Amino acid sequence: MTIPARKGTSVALTAGQKLRVENTFGSQVLDTWAFSAADFGEYMAMEATRSWNSRLTPAVGDVLVSNRYRPMLKLVEDTTPGVHDTLMCCCSPGIYAKMGYPAHDNCEDNFHAALKAIGRDVDFTPGPLNLFMNFPVTPDGQITREPPVSKPGDYVVFEALVDVVVVFSACPQDISAVNGAGRMPTDAHYTVFGDAQ
Amino acid sequence: MTIPARKGTSVALTAGQKLRVENTFGSQVLDTWAFSAADFGEYMAMEATRSWNSRLTPAVGDVLVSNRYRPMLKLVEDTTPGVHDTLMCCCSPGIYAKMGYPAHDNCEDNFHAALKAIGRDVDFTPGPLNLFMNFPVTPDGQITREPPVSKPGDYVVFEALVDVVVVFSACPQDISAVNGAGRMPTDAHYTVFGDAQ
Repeated sequence: MTIPARKGTSVALTAGQKLRVENTFGSQVLDTWAFSAADFGEYMAMEATRSWNSRLTPAVGDVLVSNRYRPMLKLVEDTTPGVHDTLMCCCSPGIYAKMGYPAHDNCEDNFHAALKAIGRDVDFTPGPLNLFMNFPVTPDGQITREPPVSKPGDYVVFEALVDVVVVFSACPQDISAVNGAGRMPTDAHYTVFGDAQ
Repeated sequence: MTIPARKGTSVALTAGQKLRVENTFGSQVLDTWAFSAADFGEYMAMEATRSWNSRLTPAVGDVLVSNRYRPMLKLVEDTTPGVHDTLMCCCSPGIYAKMGYPAHDNCEDNFHAALKAIGRDVDFTPGPLNLFMNFPVTPDGQITREPPVSKPGDYVVFEALVDVVVVFSACPQDISAVNGAGRMPTDAHYTVFGDAQ
């Protein structure tokens, strides 16, 4: 299935199923959220995920943890060098307004639109898992901004540990090089496979 | 005013006022949140604060930014070595259950109790600013856990940039050394001063 350039979408997974997320053209950042299908009050929380794993960025074998400190997804495969981001908010009307582009497409609106498309919404925006985003942290705690290091066809695979709804936004940032030096947001793709538990 | 050991409390500030938060006994972590007094849908967001400042931890002169990407507080003074945390969720029933202490006092319950005490609440728990907490990040992105480096009487001062309600929890963690090698949560104190704008 396609995650269209500059847009959001969602996919429901049953516990035990796997989700393969491909950076088809290599340099597209995918802001990613997850909710418990049974209760959208339970959401994947980067602050809980960092606490559980004692790591800034999940590695293969790590779990992604909810605001209730329960594992929701497990990262089971990653063909990239493992560079993703858990630190930064998604791009939003506020960010683009500050940059001088007040009407720019943005991941926050994409996130809420993707939820509304399935008849849901939440009144806040959790901090996302920014797949493929390359914002290195210097030893003195500065956060820098670099293009992705992933290559076309690179992918990550998650296993659903509970029934979840995953939301993606193919980040529409085309002012900086977040989505590659070409500053051209692209489609990405996902596949669901494996048996439910 | 006292922030009682193991408990939460809140304080309202008018734009222009300053808030001095003292680590009276030197090693108490204070989980800290803020809301716009006009709209509790707007809250201080660590993921937005890191994005705005391009830094893991706010330094003197930096602002603390809301989920709507608007500055809410400014860090104007810090007598500590500047070691605070923005990465970790607050301690919660889920964390203590995982550690084998399911009924332990926790900052999440303190946060919601402090809001309820002023007739408010929210149905989620933003990632907190963990004042005085010393969780260094290694160059390879591991997050370690060390006792605070602050000293008795050290303090930080925030200026309110909008009308805000600040919520504190004097972290009740007494199993690990988060609140010092003595593992003894203590009171801390705050003062509001200065003129409203």
